[in-house]
Amino acid sequence: MAGGVGSRFWPMSTPEKPKQFIDVLGIGKSLIQLTVERFETIIPVENVWIVTSEKYKSIVREQLPSIPESQILLEPCMRNTAPCIEYVSRKIYAKYPEANLVFSPADHIVLDVNRFREVIKDSLEFTENRDAILTLGMMPTRPETGYGYIKSCGCQQPTANSQQPIAKVEAFKEKPNLETAKSYIAEGGYYWNAGIFIWNAKMVVNTIATLVPELASVFDKIEPYFYSEKEQEIINQYFPTCPNISIDYAVMEKSKEVYVYPADFGWSDLGTWGSLYTHLEQDENNNASVGQNINLIDCKNCIVHTPSERKVVIQGLDNFIIAESDNTLLICKKDEEQHIKDWQK
Amino acid sequence: MAGGVGSRFWPMSTPEKPKQFIDVLGIGKSLIQLTVERFETIIPVENVWIVTSEKYKSIVREQLPSIPESQILLEPCMRNTAPCIEYVSRKIYAKYPEANLVFSPADHIVLDVNRFREVIKDSLEFTENRDAILTLGMMPTRPETGYGYIKSCGCQQPTANSQQPIAKVEAFKEKPNLETAKSYIAEGGYYWNAGIFIWNAKMVVNTIATLVPELASVFDKIEPYFYSEKEQEIINQYFPTCPNISIDYAVMEKSKEVYVYPADFGWSDLGTWGSLYTHLEQDENNNASVGQNINLIDCKNCIVHTPSERKVVIQGLDNFIIAESDNTLLICKKDEEQHIKDWQK
Repeated sequence: MAGGVGSRFWPMSTPEKPKQFIDVLGIGKSLIQLTVERFETIIPVENVWIVTSEKYKSIVREQLPSIPESQILLEPCMRNTAPCIEYVSRKIYAKYPEANLVFSPADHIVLDVNRFREVIKDSLEFTENRDAILTLGMMPTRPETGYGYIKSCGCQQPTANSQQPIAKVEAFKEKPNLETAKSYIAEGGYYWNAGIFIWNAKMVVNTIATLVPELASVFDKIEPYFYSEKEQEIINQYFPTCPNISIDYAVMEKSKEVYVYPADFGWSDLGTWGSLYTHLEQDENNNASVGQNINLIDCKNCIVHTPSERKVVIQGLDNFIIAESDNTLLICKKDEEQHIKDWQK
Repeated sequence: MAGGVGSRFWPMSTPEKPKQFIDVLGIGKSLIQLTVERFETIIPVENVWIVTSEKYKSIVREQLPSIPESQILLEPCMRNTAPCIEYVSRKIYAKYPEANLVFSPADHIVLDVNRFREVIKDSLEFTENRDAILTLGMMPTRPETGYGYIKSCGCQQPTANSQQPIAKVEAFKEKPNLETAKSYIAEGGYYWNAGIFIWNAKMVVNTIATLVPELASVFDKIEPYFYSEKEQEIINQYFPTCPNISIDYAVMEKSKEVYVYPADFGWSDLGTWGSLYTHLEQDENNNASVGQNINLIDCKNCIVHTPSERKVVIQGLDNFIIAESDNTLLICKKDEEQHIKDWQK
């Protein structure tokens, strides 16, 4: 799922080139490249599908040349995650009715890729022949208020690999305030919702038909054109009529067959500058820099993100974000980053 | 005189495109364009000569298309102001022995151009038939430590226009410390040295022959090639052998025939970010901005200078310089600007 516009990371991320296509960590690979790479060895690249906006098609082709063009699905407009998941699932199901699917955002990071792959393999095994929706629940390491939470019922399910404590979900919880988040941590059985879902194609199609019929009916009209030359034209015609709805709201909070796999592989949605800051190497003054030619003088607790070819000299700042894209500069206090959306208008 | 590299104004000014070629004030004209424009109506453009580095030739041609290419003199290396003045004076004198000359830096600003023109006209009248070197002394408005001072002897000279208090120079004073600068202001008769000199070509040639013979002797060798196809080749060969010396040190401090014209036309050498700041319009929070798309939030006392097409959002800074060139960003406290030279290395 690579259709987001990444507005919180402005100006590094812009509507023309959002976060998933940027080398956020300064390691020579964009987040979507890292995401595809993360599935190597467990899912062959010929089984990888990208759903994105039509305006990002050329970036996807450029950054992921190994993905066949026929597996890059283009949304003509943004309609949140439910239509995205329905589109790719219906299309795959039409040709491969036995398919077992992993849905992943393209703009998150995972630190322990080996552990991630183990979890995904276990998960696919769990959903292969089960009418189940498996979500990955991240072991919380702090009372984070920027994530939604999944509450497990605590009743472990039998799995082939009994080491895996997969359990039924009792409830999904919206982003809590700090007090509530602290109570979740203290109580236990709460996990961060990573937005990664594993279920088989038949289960997706049947569940959406039952729980979101107004969405399924749109794709009933589109289905006859899958894999035809007219597919994009028909998508462009009907996709805008899909309800604008998230899979969490449309399905996860309603289905009785949702499970959670508590996992710990160093995950972040990189949803804020602050969360990126914690994932970058910091110098002796707690400055984190992404860029090739950055000279910090009398600075501390800053995060600096600049294009690699750019020369930067910064003196005398404490606890600031300094970020540049090709044509934009942002300097602001870290504590004020929630206002970035307003300032960029 | 347009050969300087403007290192104090980095990164707005770079060795590739120094200050004189930049629209420092954000008004659509570079400082050298403003300088040439300042002489319009009193000196015809066909009498304007530019001395610059060979690497700036194309910028000069582009920014000043009305100046004949034959009047753009190219120094193969930097040798301070005395060789620059000797070169252009010897060349003009060889063809126009009656010429009367004004030497002006290309990177200063003048606010009251009408008053400036009156002063230059008076000055040319004073030096036309006199063996005199006339310097412009700026009425000091504050105990500035960034300028050299000229001490007048106080004895006014008779001039055609007796309104003009031209006087002999008693001494040139180097940049003073604050205490000394304050005493100059209190005592009176001290003026800022603007580096603008008016003297006739014959006087320049004779004075340098007497006071700086090692410089004159270099141009004795070059002179036969003036206005020939070999001129640039010979200049490239001999100019590097000129002493690296300023006209102030080589001539002004030694000649007995130096006069000062105390003038007041709102002058600045724009030698520091601080001096530029005082010459820009300030908003209600005392921020001065040059750029088309600058959004300042909770900022005060800042100076922001960015390329016009660049979008900039800055929050939470007090008393900072934020400056960008095409490929470089500087953020530093205004009080620390004396260190900019060190940081850019």
